[in-house]
Amino acid sequence: MRTSIATVCLSGTLEEKLHAAARAGFDGVEIFEQDLLVSPDSPETIAALAHRLGLSLDLYQPFRDFEGVAEDEFEKNLVRAQKKFDLMARLGMDTMLLCSNVGTATIADDGIVVEQLRRLGDLAERCGIDIAYEALAWGRFVSEYDHAWDLVRAADHPRIGTCLDSFHILSRDTDLSRISEIPGEKIFFLQLADAPALSMDVLSWSRHHRVFPGEGAWDLTDFLARVAATGYAGPVSLEVFNDSFRQADTQRTAIDGLRSLRWLEASVAAEAPTDHGAAEASTGHGAATGHDTSGRSTGGPGTPDGTGLDLQPLPRVAAPSGINYVELSTDDLGTLTRQLHQLGLRFIGFHRSKPQVQLWRRGSARIIITEVDPETARGTFLRGIGFEVSDASASMDRASLLHAVEVPREQTHNDEVLRGVFAPDGSEVFFHQATGDDPIWVAEFGTGGVEQSSRIDHINLAQPAHHYDEAVLFYTSLLALEAQPSQDVPSPSGLVRSQVMSSADGAVRIPLNVSPAGSAEVTVRGANPTGDTYPEHVAIACEDIFAAAATALGRGLEFLEVPENYYEDLEARFALDPQLLDALREHNILYDRDETGEFLHFYTATIGSVFFEMVERRTGYRGYGAPNAPVRLAAQHRRNTGS
Amino acid sequence: MRTSIATVCLSGTLEEKLHAAARAGFDGVEIFEQDLLVSPDSPETIAALAHRLGLSLDLYQPFRDFEGVAEDEFEKNLVRAQKKFDLMARLGMDTMLLCSNVGTATIADDGIVVEQLRRLGDLAERCGIDIAYEALAWGRFVSEYDHAWDLVRAADHPRIGTCLDSFHILSRDTDLSRISEIPGEKIFFLQLADAPALSMDVLSWSRHHRVFPGEGAWDLTDFLARVAATGYAGPVSLEVFNDSFRQADTQRTAIDGLRSLRWLEASVAAEAPTDHGAAEASTGHGAATGHDTSGRSTGGPGTPDGTGLDLQPLPRVAAPSGINYVELSTDDLGTLTRQLHQLGLRFIGFHRSKPQVQLWRRGSARIIITEVDPETARGTFLRGIGFEVSDASASMDRASLLHAVEVPREQTHNDEVLRGVFAPDGSEVFFHQATGDDPIWVAEFGTGGVEQSSRIDHINLAQPAHHYDEAVLFYTSLLALEAQPSQDVPSPSGLVRSQVMSSADGAVRIPLNVSPAGSAEVTVRGANPTGDTYPEHVAIACEDIFAAAATALGRGLEFLEVPENYYEDLEARFALDPQLLDALREHNILYDRDETGEFLHFYTATIGSVFFEMVERRTGYRGYGAPNAPVRLAAQHRRNTGS
Repeated sequence: MRTSIATVCLSGTLEEKLHAAARAGFDGVEIFEQDLLVSPDSPETIAALAHRLGLSLDLYQPFRDFEGVAEDEFEKNLVRAQKKFDLMARLGMDTMLLCSNVGTATIADDGIVVEQLRRLGDLAERCGIDIAYEALAWGRFVSEYDHAWDLVRAADHPRIGTCLDSFHILSRDTDLSRISEIPGEKIFFLQLADAPALSMDVLSWSRHHRVFPGEGAWDLTDFLARVAATGYAGPVSLEVFNDSFRQADTQRTAIDGLRSLRWLEASVAAEAPTDHGAAEASTGHGAATGHDTSGRSTGGPGTPDGTGLDLQPLPRVAAPSGINYVELSTDDLGTLTRQLHQLGLRFIGFHRSKPQVQLWRRGSARIIITEVDPETARGTFLRGIGFEVSDASASMDRASLLHAVEVPREQTHNDEVLRGVFAPDGSEVFFHQATGDDPIWVAEFGTGGVEQSSRIDHINLAQPAHHYDEAVLFYTSLLALEAQPSQDVPSPSGLVRSQVMSSADGAVRIPLNVSPAGSAEVTVRGANPTGDTYPEHVAIACEDIFAAAATALGRGLEFLEVPENYYEDLEARFALDPQLLDALREHNILYDRDETGEFLHFYTATIGSVFFEMVERRTGYRGYGAPNAPVRLAAQHRRNTGS
Repeated sequence: MRTSIATVCLSGTLEEKLHAAARAGFDGVEIFEQDLLVSPDSPETIAALAHRLGLSLDLYQPFRDFEGVAEDEFEKNLVRAQKKFDLMARLGMDTMLLCSNVGTATIADDGIVVEQLRRLGDLAERCGIDIAYEALAWGRFVSEYDHAWDLVRAADHPRIGTCLDSFHILSRDTDLSRISEIPGEKIFFLQLADAPALSMDVLSWSRHHRVFPGEGAWDLTDFLARVAATGYAGPVSLEVFNDSFRQADTQRTAIDGLRSLRWLEASVAAEAPTDHGAAEASTGHGAATGHDTSGRSTGGPGTPDGTGLDLQPLPRVAAPSGINYVELSTDDLGTLTRQLHQLGLRFIGFHRSKPQVQLWRRGSARIIITEVDPETARGTFLRGIGFEVSDASASMDRASLLHAVEVPREQTHNDEVLRGVFAPDGSEVFFHQATGDDPIWVAEFGTGGVEQSSRIDHINLAQPAHHYDEAVLFYTSLLALEAQPSQDVPSPSGLVRSQVMSSADGAVRIPLNVSPAGSAEVTVRGANPTGDTYPEHVAIACEDIFAAAATALGRGLEFLEVPENYYEDLEARFALDPQLLDALREHNILYDRDETGEFLHFYTATIGSVFFEMVERRTGYRGYGAPNAPVRLAAQHRRNTGS
């Protein structure tokens, strides 16, 4: 699949954008006119740079407010078009995006629009330019893709085709069935964007909230499959207007974008027929007939995947079956291990070849602690997570093909070989072959602690706001976790956006928290260990929270304090048994209930940027005690501010 | 007017919120339940703190999902209510907000709701509690204020009244005429919020985007006047859910909120009849009859302003008639004055008693330069603006009554007495008596420079994102400037939100820019003079931009570079005369056109956080060359990053 990205997706200058797109591995770019206008480089210089970088210049955009106007206005527009065609010649470009008229259209007459498109086609023919006509969702008279296609078909001009943009189509919830009517070679361009489900005016939604495929709420797999079935063989391009992406690091955003296209490509390939060249890959239109005056390749059923796009699969993976371990780094070993002891974890031993690494466990809840060299990192922080997967090498291959960066790791010859990649938040994600038994590497530390009944219930990670969408795509595309609906939790320093990434069976649950914009963000782990870093936590599930709390109390655990007002409200809300209420109170335990069960949990004080939670789930409770999160956040705020 | 604020408007702990509300000068607060639940202080401690701070506890809120349910559910809800009444007794509170049922209502039968409200009233009567029933805009069966009022009227219970919340009413665009049907004493509470005109789902709009009155798009003056006319005599309270406010400094937000209420109060007072006790202040309902079983005072036509609210006016001011001067601070006098000389400004002299201060001018464009002590500030930055007003002492009095902080200023006995206040961005705003002539203080520097024809066209200020709404209210309420529609301008490092504050005649124009969240914010002027501070600029209007540019070029001005691609696009867009186009090119001049005229302008390089613009407006052009802003931003980005 040929990949492309509109320069407007990325921050920086046009030169920076081209370099970032090429380094990420895109095949081409769309040149967004604004980026060219503000550039000091001539069109020829830009073209030469793109050539040197191995990027094709796939689409010049946008050309606006052209059709559906009176003749005198139309003639001016033709002059305007000619000037842009001249510019495109200097850039060596051959496809221009024409957006349906928003601002100047006065004539709601398809016949006149068809005639004007045809005349533009004649001009374009003389300049060797193809026109991709796109219905903007807020176009004055043309706002639906099938209307634009009807006009293109009626214009019947070899230089006039249509451009399909998933945002403009899916945002209007238009019936997609007519996509199959369009012959692939009349789709001159394909732009993809995903978006969160927001109920707002479509223009603002489009201009500020688009995200890359897989980061929003739409089914782009179905959309791309439909376009692929037409025989379309051109670039698949990202066109995403997003306030955060515009501010984020150019290179990171480019890699995030390409990951999204590779994931989408594989998703469509996975659903495509496996017998190559199957008839159903085309719905009978001209894809295979090769009628193509513009010189674009039509591919079609001849390519291995049965579409014109030559879709490449990725190794398939299932969601992880469990958390193998959590690794923490610390420069305060005494405080951290005392807290683990208070929570009932047992010290198993030091790693046989890495003396700075030790293992603590409570049943299958395994915590690896690495004492950090204060020269390279400081504080106590969550360094990584080991996931149990059914095929570790497939997971690692998939991760690499999705452009994740492998964690460099020294390997001692007789230890278990572990491989992993960096997550967008800088934490490490390792893939472990699930065995059903205790992992092999545990023996590198020692024995014991298996008999306790405990597991890691969930791991709460803090995400920098600017890379939040990237994180969602990372966990869904690499680990096959599913994004649950997000919610906002009030804290004394602002709203915290929270969204859980989980496996269908709940064996793996990773709530992602976006801290308020004002607070310091986790970017380099261990670099900012104190102050207002938003804390992360590991929740350990046990079978008897009161016993666990009693042990912890006996061993001197510093519980996070729960206010009496909270317990009085609990009573009003749930009409709890007074004895249970007293027991909760006595142990600083919080309580929640849903339709199926109950949730009891307590928190520890924070060490560095990490704290722990002990939880007991009763009869199938599914949540995370979200109604209690404000209590925790307020208590942590009081500790931090000393108020 | 009694002022109140919901604790949810403010960041921090409940204790911090109470202190901030009291210090700002609020009379009371609404206790938002969540704030109490997460507080370690007992209700009695909170009540004692409020008492000590002189704050009344005006409303306990919210009580939810009560009415319109089956009998068994209803009985549980009564138990829930009883527990909250007990809690309120401990807080010494007597008014509770009841929101119309969102989550659990199953019975769309007004008769049953009325009966259930009445039974709640009986319970409330025994506990001495008043219930203020409010229609939430997204209520299941009750979502309009007049529906809630019909239910309250039918319940006909002394303990059951209504709560009016401007957000829930104005967001639905409900006809306001029925407000006058409600007797003032049956309005048990009044909550005010403004909001920007957004087209999105009303729940998200309400939860994230409310702002204080005067900071949004609604006519709160009309709304409050209507409620005042009913004879309502209770607190006027702010209930604003806003993501930025939740993160902002607690004390600042409280002061911003009280400013908004004082401004609104005076706006209503200014429109009220001046003959006190006029009949039209009440529409004939019970306001003056004094039937008030709850003990709340009804005020009514007896109070001086003819309403129950006792509205206090503020000194009235008109918009400024001009910019008297702009003051810049610098630690790089040579570079700054060289640039002023290049722009055709003349050095007039040093201040006779302040040797570190000098005046440069070009006609009525006056720039005061203060050389800063590097111990207290660094760089070159915009320190303040002098506005010409028709009554300087009225402006200063109004500013003080609106809680602006006066700039401390050393006064030499025979110099003109100048007074001013700090704007939210830390710049100084001074009020000068307009004379029509050159200001008196100019003589303190020297003579000359008057004969040139130039003026300050506009001053572009950078605003920290978290205090943007506060800035809008500051300039409208203190200086009577009008907020124009805002727009987003793309820059290489993100979108820049831009909104112009201007006088009706255009004599004063202050575009406010909100820089992308990632870049450093202007908070303490002079504290962060280098790096990525978003720059501010002063635009000087002249009559011949080509002459000004030629002078500047001759004197060696470093122009901000304009790319050739820009000029080629200009040609395509406007079909400009080739000679004009060449002249623009030669002088790095940018061009724009609107329906009435043309705009020609050029920019200087940035010194510290300040640069200059020279502009020529032809035949009534009204804008600021916004289409050219991306060119400027990209050029500045290239300079900053050296790319």
